[in-house]
Amino acid sequence: MTRRAALGGIVLTMIGVSTAAAQQTLVEQARFAFRPIPHEPPAVEGLEATPARVELGKMLYFEPRLSKSHTISCNTCHSVGMAGIDPLETSIGHRWQRGSRNAPTVFNAVFNTAQFWDGRASDLETQAAGPLLNPIEMGSSPGDIVKRLKAIPGYVARFREAFPGQDDPITFEHVRRLIALFEATLITPDAPFDRYLRGNEDAMTTEEKNGLRVFLEKGCVQCHHGVNVGGGRYAPFGVVEVPGADLLPREDKGRFNVTRTADSEYVFKVPGLRNVVLTAPYFHSGRAWDLRQAVAVMGTSQLGAALNDDEVDEIVAFLYSLTGRQPVVTYPMLPPNGPDTPRPEP
Amino acid sequence: MTRRAALGGIVLTMIGVSTAAAQQTLVEQARFAFRPIPHEPPAVEGLEATPARVELGKMLYFEPRLSKSHTISCNTCHSVGMAGIDPLETSIGHRWQRGSRNAPTVFNAVFNTAQFWDGRASDLETQAAGPLLNPIEMGSSPGDIVKRLKAIPGYVARFREAFPGQDDPITFEHVRRLIALFEATLITPDAPFDRYLRGNEDAMTTEEKNGLRVFLEKGCVQCHHGVNVGGGRYAPFGVVEVPGADLLPREDKGRFNVTRTADSEYVFKVPGLRNVVLTAPYFHSGRAWDLRQAVAVMGTSQLGAALNDDEVDEIVAFLYSLTGRQPVVTYPMLPPNGPDTPRPEP
Repeated sequence: MTRRAALGGIVLTMIGVSTAAAQQTLVEQARFAFRPIPHEPPAVEGLEATPARVELGKMLYFEPRLSKSHTISCNTCHSVGMAGIDPLETSIGHRWQRGSRNAPTVFNAVFNTAQFWDGRASDLETQAAGPLLNPIEMGSSPGDIVKRLKAIPGYVARFREAFPGQDDPITFEHVRRLIALFEATLITPDAPFDRYLRGNEDAMTTEEKNGLRVFLEKGCVQCHHGVNVGGGRYAPFGVVEVPGADLLPREDKGRFNVTRTADSEYVFKVPGLRNVVLTAPYFHSGRAWDLRQAVAVMGTSQLGAALNDDEVDEIVAFLYSLTGRQPVVTYPMLPPNGPDTPRPEP
Repeated sequence: MTRRAALGGIVLTMIGVSTAAAQQTLVEQARFAFRPIPHEPPAVEGLEATPARVELGKMLYFEPRLSKSHTISCNTCHSVGMAGIDPLETSIGHRWQRGSRNAPTVFNAVFNTAQFWDGRASDLETQAAGPLLNPIEMGSSPGDIVKRLKAIPGYVARFREAFPGQDDPITFEHVRRLIALFEATLITPDAPFDRYLRGNEDAMTTEEKNGLRVFLEKGCVQCHHGVNVGGGRYAPFGVVEVPGADLLPREDKGRFNVTRTADSEYVFKVPGLRNVVLTAPYFHSGRAWDLRQAVAVMGTSQLGAALNDDEVDEIVAFLYSLTGRQPVVTYPMLPPNGPDTPRPEP
């Protein structure tokens, strides 16, 4: 089975979009394929968002004591000041170990259908456990985390407030869900593209609209659609032409590690393109630093159509219209250690 | 010359305080030795604080790309969410190297007469260069930093705005001064003790006022006075009794490394005690995690008077009154890399 055939179902579905396109205006086509980012954070299943919980989730997101060394927090690799990423090929974790894949943005991640490059977590609250427990990232265990938090009096009080009436509110489950609750607030509405989708045709420049047209016509939209302009499905990196090992290191077989089926070799979750001009470097390998290069590679590897310089420029112009209003985050005050807080293990 | 003799001048000066004390009320004695934290940040010499400069200084303070690895910022070790410290004995720097001394708080540091534990920097703008350039901390060079910032278009625009009319505003000198400008805003006014000093006698509890009295009577005030309740002079660690190597590692001779004079062996800047209940672990070695222990050690090593448990408790009660209003910091948006931004070197 060729890679193209593996994607057949999806390609066919999208042909419907292309056929309809002929009779539609550009904005109608766009509305068919994309959705604007809502103004309010979506609900996180299983835990109602109260102000006390969202604030506690923010504290935990910034809390370096969730790591074994007490130096690495969620925000270290997914900085709220850098569109939810770090500016590295792959992040640096516990004892300066390097991650194997580029840190995806946390911004708007709540709109992805799955988390991680290989989709191995179905939602943010499942994802949150990954870096916390990964020995090369934060290096903790659920038991360590609960023990530490229980020995920090300020957190004991905050968890009581967030879960009134509960006898033992400091659980790893709650930690994960609270972090997810805060992460769900990290959305970037009101990009020019969102305002365009909502009916303001002047919100995008002529160049950006031309780029949108090219994006639709060339077929980028087959993978990059929905609220996040991606993040909704999987695709082999190299549908048509397998990129060089510089961009696609052969040792990382992507979703194959999750499914163990041959047709998921080198398959990755399609990344969302929201705020993409802010989130270099690109690809799961983090090896493409230049957005124009990344777009050109997508042309040859995924579409089988080498994009000319003008087309790359046009698509990049469209991508600029995906930069939304960045969340304003007040740095949380983290409570001091108590007398029995376990010591860092750097 | 004994250590005690080396401090003779200061001890004599302070006797004046003690003699006068008999005729003074507690608040009068306190006002003689201490000053409240002002409500507005003090000026930084050599650079007028404009909103554009303070905001740019904040961006630089949070900017991991000032480090060689693009992962460590000022805020990594001096977190605005943790009273200006990290919760470690000594910080972790470039390639997981460990610093040799505990990271002092940046909060209210502008009121210290010198910076670093050994006072080797006279002011914040001189201090700022230290971690930036230290190979075991951020590991950069002035040239690297200037080159990186000049290759990030967002910074080019911000520096132009902060230094209107200047042809070449991105200089290492400006980077240092801008960081200092932001740091000078990190002050914590309105602690109970400040409100007490300003005339509200009910701002402190009876226990806290008792502790203040003990603090004055036992002579803690001889070293810990002024706005920062410290930070204004040097003292040997072990004026009376040299602490064990667990707290005072023998290889770090403190200010001796700056002055090379025998009488500055094991001399350190007296740390300020503002927000001290938030800034464990303690001492230049970061080896004392418990504030009661730290106070007790000060009694034996500096005062030659073993403090009994009640006295330690009373002093600790006073120290609680030194926790001020923590600065509210909105996380800055950091501009993305440009096409020619030098890559991180992790």
